[in-house]
Amino acid sequence: MNSDVGESFGVYKIGLDEEVIPHITSANIGCGFHGGDPAVMRKTISLAKQYGVELGSHPGFPDLMGFGRRNMDATLEEIQDYVVYQTGALQAFATSQGLMLQHVKPHGSLYNMAVANPRIWEAIAESLAKLDREIILVALASSKREPLLEIGKRYGIRIAFEAFPDRAYKNDGSLVSRREKGAVIHDHEIVANRALKMALEGKVIAIDGTEIELKADTLCVHGDNPAAVQMVKRIREGLKASGVEVTPMKNFI
Amino acid sequence: MNSDVGESFGVYKIGLDEEVIPHITSANIGCGFHGGDPAVMRKTISLAKQYGVELGSHPGFPDLMGFGRRNMDATLEEIQDYVVYQTGALQAFATSQGLMLQHVKPHGSLYNMAVANPRIWEAIAESLAKLDREIILVALASSKREPLLEIGKRYGIRIAFEAFPDRAYKNDGSLVSRREKGAVIHDHEIVANRALKMALEGKVIAIDGTEIELKADTLCVHGDNPAAVQMVKRIREGLKASGVEVTPMKNFI
Amino acid sequence: MNSDVGESFGVYKIGLDEEVIPHITSANIGCGFHGGDPAVMRKTISLAKQYGVELGSHPGFPDLMGFGRRNMDATLEEIQDYVVYQTGALQAFATSQGLMLQHVKPHGSLYNMAVANPRIWEAIAESLAKLDREIILVALASSKREPLLEIGKRYGIRIAFEAFPDRAYKNDGSLVSRREKGAVIHDHEIVANRALKMALEGKVIAIDGTEIELKADTLCVHGDNPAAVQMVKRIREGLKASGVEVTPMKNFI
Amino acid sequence: MNSDVGESFGVYKIGLDEEVIPHITSANIGCGFHGGDPAVMRKTISLAKQYGVELGSHPGFPDLMGFGRRNMDATLEEIQDYVVYQTGALQAFATSQGLMLQHVKPHGSLYNMAVANPRIWEAIAESLAKLDREIILVALASSKREPLLEIGKRYGIRIAFEAFPDRAYKNDGSLVSRREKGAVIHDHEIVANRALKMALEGKVIAIDGTEIELKADTLCVHGDNPAAVQMVKRIREGLKASGVEVTPMKNFI
Repeated sequence: MNSDVGESFGVYKIGLDEEVIPHITSANIGCGFHGGDPAVMRKTISLAKQYGVELGSHPGFPDLMGFGRRNMDATLEEIQDYVVYQTGALQAFATSQGLMLQHVKPHGSLYNMAVANPRIWEAIAESLAKLDREIILVALASSKREPLLEIGKRYGIRIAFEAFPDRAYKNDGSLVSRREKGAVIHDHEIVANRALKMALEGKVIAIDGTEIELKADTLCVHGDNPAAVQMVKRIREGLKASGVEVTPMKNFI
Repeated sequence: MNSDVGESFGVYKIGLDEEVIPHITSANIGCGFHGGDPAVMRKTISLAKQYGVELGSHPGFPDLMGFGRRNMDATLEEIQDYVVYQTGALQAFATSQGLMLQHVKPHGSLYNMAVANPRIWEAIAESLAKLDREIILVALASSKREPLLEIGKRYGIRIAFEAFPDRAYKNDGSLVSRREKGAVIHDHEIVANRALKMALEGKVIAIDGTEIELKADTLCVHGDNPAAVQMVKRIREGLKASGVEVTPMKNFI
Repeated sequence: MNSDVGESFGVYKIGLDEEVIPHITSANIGCGFHGGDPAVMRKTISLAKQYGVELGSHPGFPDLMGFGRRNMDATLEEIQDYVVYQTGALQAFATSQGLMLQHVKPHGSLYNMAVANPRIWEAIAESLAKLDREIILVALASSKREPLLEIGKRYGIRIAFEAFPDRAYKNDGSLVSRREKGAVIHDHEIVANRALKMALEGKVIAIDGTEIELKADTLCVHGDNPAAVQMVKRIREGLKASGVEVTPMKNFI
Repeated sequence: MNSDVGESFGVYKIGLDEEVIPHITSANIGCGFHGGDPAVMRKTISLAKQYGVELGSHPGFPDLMGFGRRNMDATLEEIQDYVVYQTGALQAFATSQGLMLQHVKPHGSLYNMAVANPRIWEAIAESLAKLDREIILVALASSKREPLLEIGKRYGIRIAFEAFPDRAYKNDGSLVSRREKGAVIHDHEIVANRALKMALEGKVIAIDGTEIELKADTLCVHGDNPAAVQMVKRIREGLKASGVEVTPMKNFI
């Protein structure tokens, strides 16, 4: 279970990090471009350390005003530089606390653009291969696993696939766009059940009712508000009750 | 011999990095806060690698508009976070090219504030001790060596002292402020001779004519303009002609 | 009654603007340097317009990471440029909604530095004289009114003095530093009474118990949290009950 | 004749503003998002004033690292807010020097995106209609004049069409992309002749040799380097020699 945290900036607080971190296994930490700042990075790592949560960088576009959620026409080389810069900055805070990074998960538009254009996944994998081959790249689980696994193999990088229990899927395994109705599922019960189905069966019910395959290594959950945190707790308990061991991705990828 | 390089930003170019890097031994590379950006960092490291020049981070205040030259009332903890963030980002680019950082030299106002307040040197040394004890901290050579050496000892960090051949010194070993007349010496010949005297005798003629002691491990030179680059060449040749071996600080600190 | 509003940035929300704006007469609106962004500025003006609240720029240092609360060693000319830039940007949003700015109130460290160094008030007044003489400059009410009134006269700019009902005062009329104990008063009842005393008698009880004179034209109140908003309501009701007409400063300065 | 100027930032200098401004009639001034800063804006206006050059804002995306040259997936409302913010900031500096803005010309990707999507021109025109109807909107001259003139009429805003003497055109009146060979013409003589043909005949020779119609009100010229400045001089002299009066666009639009 992973969650985006450490995205506060200066006096601005976003996300209930203190409440969600105890329930996850992997923290995707903002690195100062779309959110997060040096002090927030240090404190978030400290909090994750306290709960034994594994660390990942969550690099985004240099667009604080848009929280990295606006597509930017950056070159592959610029993207690589941004990933290296941000991941390196986070690594330093991890090292300073005696820890290492487990993974990298691109943020917002960078993530979405990579989903649409595998050359971006490849560019990021290439960067990580030079920086640290132990770092796992987290990508969207979908029906198109092969090209990503191929990229991972080529660069000697492990790829972890993630799924979103609270997001609707199309029957081709892609996410329903947030702009469409029903894209986000708010009912705790349903979300917890979807999470369970994803974890136990590697399947999800698509928005058209079809059951499709969706093999995911990690589930992305949110800590934006108290209800979200409750949902995270519920998912974790549900997984536990069903005998699913929830453990950081580095243990099994 | 060290020089501040890699301070260009986006389309904005500053400094004749291509011309000065071949003549120095240690490069202080901007890390994106006062100057420099991810692409510039990567390219500057690549250039330094080509000439066997050692790498150092050159962290500054988050003040691009003022080029890190305005004092900012940041806390010691903020300063530590800024140094860790920037140094980590640079480390990642170095690692990606198979290199390691040799040193850290604070930039502009951060440097000046540290000179005025040793608790800032201490805060930075403490950060480096957690991040990487091999990294040398570059500080201003002056008559007050002891407190700095003491800080280095306490945190297990090596301190290198630097002197400025083109800057006038007061007879107490401190720099004449840039706001005062005669603070910067422009005559190549004189500057080269001062560099030589610093390197061979560990002495400098202060602005009042007194000869004072100034033990420096590294000389800071500039590549702002063609004349500055000529001066760097001249200093290097002068040192060589006098039998001084010019080698990166990690070899002797 | 004035309050700092419009300091949210991108996805980051700060302050209960929707709740505090209905109760104040003058809004000090962030202009993008320390807080606020173009969309927030537009929306805040729209909200203020809805409640007939007068508009003022709230320019700060270009330090989003520090929320403009860190002293920066900027020159008087830089300060003027920052005030003109930010005030102009806000004016454009006001003009677009058929409104004009009533006042300028510097933010955070810029305000505090001006309190400590009247040459900063003077620099700002000089800027406003060139930009728009109708704009009122809001400064800290203290025992030292004369130099400020003199500056206002010299530049043809009106000065409004503000007091802080929830802040402790020293017996010389200056504010007790936030770093000292008791600097901020949290008891609603006491704060409302202080506000009343300030408005009706032009006096305040200093932290040492002395009653001192403090002629204020406007009271600064906060909307940081629900309790703060309650305090604002209470102050306004208290003033009304005592027959004090609460009206924008432009009506009486 | 218009030119992009005032795009320096802090210590970073770009463009030979001092040399090109004396030869143009309209200055497109950076407003701090893609380039330019408050001090640069003030100084650029002062320089333009000295030569009687008319002022225009040159608003771009908030992407200093990419110099506003990367497409950003901003909403129309965000674009409006950015144009209002930046234009307002520049207006304030103009007002402070007793001047008014003549025009607005979007920068870089914002300009290119508007050329590709007229709804962006419309959004900007709508903003200007609320801000100041006297401000002229500068758009790319092409064969598709009508939709733009229609937008101008709808919002009561004048549109000026600009052409690029040093850029190759396709036979449909659009610019050859900078990524294609031959997109930029470097020969002074040819560029001066194209400028003349544009001004006298309202025509240009397209890259395929066809002569096409291209009615332009203003020619965009560059001051990036000494050769560019020479070309500007040459164009101006050529126009003068041919009896073309070169005057700010507000005089004839």
